[in-house]
Amino acid sequence: MRLSQFPLATSKETPADAQVISHQLMLRAGFIRSLGSGLYTWLPIGLRTLRKIEAIVREEMNRAGALELSMPVVQPAELWQDSGRWEVMGAEMLRFKDRHQNDFCLGPTHEEVITHHVKQDFRSYRQLPVNYYQIQTKFRDERRPRFGVMRAREFLMKDAYSFHMDAEDLGREYQNMRQAYIRIFTRLGADFRAVKADSGNIGGAMSEEFHILAGSGEDLLAVAENGTYAANVEAAETRPSGKPRAAATAALSKVATPGQKTCEQVSKFLNVPLTGKVKLLVVKAAEGASASGLVAIALRGDHQLNEIKAAKHPLIASPMTLADPQDVQRVFGCEVGYLGPVGCPVPLIADYAAAEVADFVCGANDNDHHLTGANWGRDCAEPQTADLRVIAEGDPSPDGVGTIRYYRGIEGGHIFQLGTKYSAAMKLTVLNEGGQAVTPQMGCYGIGVSRLVAAVIEQSHDAGGMIWPDAIAPFRLIICPIGSDKSAAVKSAADTLYRELQAAGVDVVIDDRGNRPGSMFADADLIGIPHRIVIGDKSLATGQFEYKARRAEKAELIDASTAAVLAKLA
Amino acid sequence: MRLSQFPLATSKETPADAQVISHQLMLRAGFIRSLGSGLYTWLPIGLRTLRKIEAIVREEMNRAGALELSMPVVQPAELWQDSGRWEVMGAEMLRFKDRHQNDFCLGPTHEEVITHHVKQDFRSYRQLPVNYYQIQTKFRDERRPRFGVMRAREFLMKDAYSFHMDAEDLGREYQNMRQAYIRIFTRLGADFRAVKADSGNIGGAMSEEFHILAGSGEDLLAVAENGTYAANVEAAETRPSGKPRAAATAALSKVATPGQKTCEQVSKFLNVPLTGKVKLLVVKAAEGASASGLVAIALRGDHQLNEIKAAKHPLIASPMTLADPQDVQRVFGCEVGYLGPVGCPVPLIADYAAAEVADFVCGANDNDHHLTGANWGRDCAEPQTADLRVIAEGDPSPDGVGTIRYYRGIEGGHIFQLGTKYSAAMKLTVLNEGGQAVTPQMGCYGIGVSRLVAAVIEQSHDAGGMIWPDAIAPFRLIICPIGSDKSAAVKSAADTLYRELQAAGVDVVIDDRGNRPGSMFADADLIGIPHRIVIGDKSLATGQFEYKARRAEKAELIDASTAAVLAKLA
Repeated sequence: MRLSQFPLATSKETPADAQVISHQLMLRAGFIRSLGSGLYTWLPIGLRTLRKIEAIVREEMNRAGALELSMPVVQPAELWQDSGRWEVMGAEMLRFKDRHQNDFCLGPTHEEVITHHVKQDFRSYRQLPVNYYQIQTKFRDERRPRFGVMRAREFLMKDAYSFHMDAEDLGREYQNMRQAYIRIFTRLGADFRAVKADSGNIGGAMSEEFHILAGSGEDLLAVAENGTYAANVEAAETRPSGKPRAAATAALSKVATPGQKTCEQVSKFLNVPLTGKVKLLVVKAAEGASASGLVAIALRGDHQLNEIKAAKHPLIASPMTLADPQDVQRVFGCEVGYLGPVGCPVPLIADYAAAEVADFVCGANDNDHHLTGANWGRDCAEPQTADLRVIAEGDPSPDGVGTIRYYRGIEGGHIFQLGTKYSAAMKLTVLNEGGQAVTPQMGCYGIGVSRLVAAVIEQSHDAGGMIWPDAIAPFRLIICPIGSDKSAAVKSAADTLYRELQAAGVDVVIDDRGNRPGSMFADADLIGIPHRIVIGDKSLATGQFEYKARRAEKAELIDASTAAVLAKLA
Repeated sequence: MRLSQFPLATSKETPADAQVISHQLMLRAGFIRSLGSGLYTWLPIGLRTLRKIEAIVREEMNRAGALELSMPVVQPAELWQDSGRWEVMGAEMLRFKDRHQNDFCLGPTHEEVITHHVKQDFRSYRQLPVNYYQIQTKFRDERRPRFGVMRAREFLMKDAYSFHMDAEDLGREYQNMRQAYIRIFTRLGADFRAVKADSGNIGGAMSEEFHILAGSGEDLLAVAENGTYAANVEAAETRPSGKPRAAATAALSKVATPGQKTCEQVSKFLNVPLTGKVKLLVVKAAEGASASGLVAIALRGDHQLNEIKAAKHPLIASPMTLADPQDVQRVFGCEVGYLGPVGCPVPLIADYAAAEVADFVCGANDNDHHLTGANWGRDCAEPQTADLRVIAEGDPSPDGVGTIRYYRGIEGGHIFQLGTKYSAAMKLTVLNEGGQAVTPQMGCYGIGVSRLVAAVIEQSHDAGGMIWPDAIAPFRLIICPIGSDKSAAVKSAADTLYRELQAAGVDVVIDDRGNRPGSMFADADLIGIPHRIVIGDKSLATGQFEYKARRAEKAELIDASTAAVLAKLA
């Protein structure tokens, strides 16, 4: 491509309405233009990267045996009424009526549509398993679209849906997709992690997210150093240490702690570490689980409650809700800041780590007082235990290998084992070998194709602009001829190199706009082209081109030959 | 691809709700499935053909120097209010409100969006010309979606928009696009015609349609035999013959024609040919053009009025509307069946051909009477003339070369010179070399990508199913091994041929489902694969494969080698 024929719309100014760096750079580099809140046009330069990502996703999905189809953007309400989600989906699903006053929505996802089609055409176990995918426009009417294409309303998504005769075969395909995703994210050239995830409202047994690591990521990830465990922090399990609790050595003692309500205050006031403190949180109980309607959760002083885990506990109401302070006062006879397990008047569940502390400090269930030297099994009952906390940095990995560290990530993909949630709701059955109707198991597998463009930029940029991995760069190499309007030698060398690189299949662009060097380099850096060749009279005189990798600090001189340039790309 | 891994959903039954053959075959062959009125999912086999057409369109647009971008499906109302089309567009444009009660539409076309973007980024003549295109989902809420993907509500379209400093440069790009379209339609392998078209409400000076010829086509085309002229019949001009009118020889005579109101009745009753009759149609006049508000149009008895031409005449109201019979009675003093130019009380325009008739029969402007031997210039004034009729089969071509014949076509593409309709309405200007603000000229160029699949099927099918041109067949060649479950030789020969054709880059599929020959052949014919190789023990024994082209009546035996098969594809 020649930049004289491929207009760039670059800008030096940081757009005022763009908060994150990827959004700023995509606007500045002319990758996208806004058409309204959460609506973006992809200009030619940005579309090149988007299409390269799309092509990688398509190749790997095909290689994994998935079959591409294409479902409509506009979906009839009936399908969503069949699945029961028409009422459940919030305002994110944009609903409208057509000219005949029939109800439709803009598809935020396609479980209903694909299940409908499989129900139309599939009768027998011989037709399963199958995995259908599409790369298609989705619409979600986000309340607050933000961060450019990272959280847009209209976006490009790869969504796949698989159907199986049993859970075992679903498990096999889930692993097949997991491997395909690892190949896809590896080929993007970005640093990523596959992490265990909470499957949330989509349902199903197992799910993993694929995150592009970036300091600006919205998700917090727990990743084992010197190990393989990785999970979204909200989904990372914790385990008992496996070591016996230390024996009680201190006597129980009630101490005055006037006005000291938080763990931090008490820890400082009594000069005990947070790890020697047990705190009590009171939440609403599941129906019938507690006479008072309340349940207490004991956590070690330095640990945070994981609300998703708590909500899944049979004694606790879902979604998890903190008890009203007035109810706590009535049942415990004290304020929230002074609660403790000794004499706790409601059912108590201790997090594994809290149950392992001996000689601990805790609230005395009496205003302005705490207990020291408290011990489970001596001063109060041995608690029932559960995994209820947020995994912490420094924790051992739940699988026993390595130590947890936090990373920030941007979710780029998500794979789910859905089970029969949609097939059962939509009454999809096929006949098994014995002629019996079976409800197929389903999996679903998504990749936010347009979002990945922004995610990779968040991970890979510097003050000059984007830094693209070779595989998804809008162009892989740029030729910058200096003074080609004046020097026939420069013009000829640049044109020859351009033609020869094109013939060699290199995705090359030449900046033949006649701009000054500084302006050429600034544009090349801003759009993040990974390789740059500068051709000028000075280096040509010594038979050399100047080569610079986008990530490198300095340029270097190489032989003025196509072979030498190709060697740099190898 | 192996059919064991690529489920077909073929059916022998003709779907009751599909009226046209392409719709029937696309459902029967499992190319598409309906999701609701005018909404279709493309199943994998159909998507292969759709994507091949898309790829040809993309390659030729790129080759022509157009730049691909991608604009949103959802468009804000503001843009359409800017251009003045928000109120003008009918119910075909689906409008809705988002969660914040702002107005949007599903884009039926993108003139507004692209003009908006060019206005944002373009300042100088140095940035023009430019031609942007996209291949993208469109939605038009047709009152009566029909014929499957031929007139669907959601469909895939290639739309391009070019911007120019002057009309001359627009004309150059229009010809460039015209050539690109000819390459595209030629590569599809379908029989097509580029025809002059009426540019309708989109506006602009010049436009041509690209039609796939098919007897079932909705459009009637006028094509010159032994010539190059081709036009949509509604847009085909007619010219005066250039020969002088014959001299008057008969005397004017009033004859009783009781109850004979139509040209056909009068022609029979008086035993004169239709070509010797002049008929009068009365329509509403343009404002100020006629004291009575009416204008008369004279046509030769065998000719049909072209309402689009009439509406463009300065004396006639647009859109053209026939006068109310009561008004005709009041002004002419007789019924509609007895009107004629002699003594016509309103301004009269004669079609060129009507003005060339001498000694004609016409209504006497008196109930139950006609005139014979009437002559222009003698019995009534020489009329003003215009091109007002539908071109007829047998007419000389308007360009003087060849004779007109009618064909039926399905519109697959349309190119327009828009002029400044949208750029002026949206106040787009760029500075010319002299620093003056100029309103750019625009062109637009559409191809109905998904519709083309149906159009080619309408042109190319037989009782067995579709017949695909090689370039856009879902697969180019199918291998049908007979009894491969029993014969190791058949299985081995089939697998070897499959692998070697794949290695040679042939888009080959093998039917390894273990079906009976009849069922295999029926599926291959239905989905229209252009080349078929049958491998069985019988022919293998003599070192031969059976080859059959989809269009051929009979199969032939060829050498059982990959080379011999490749020779058939050459």
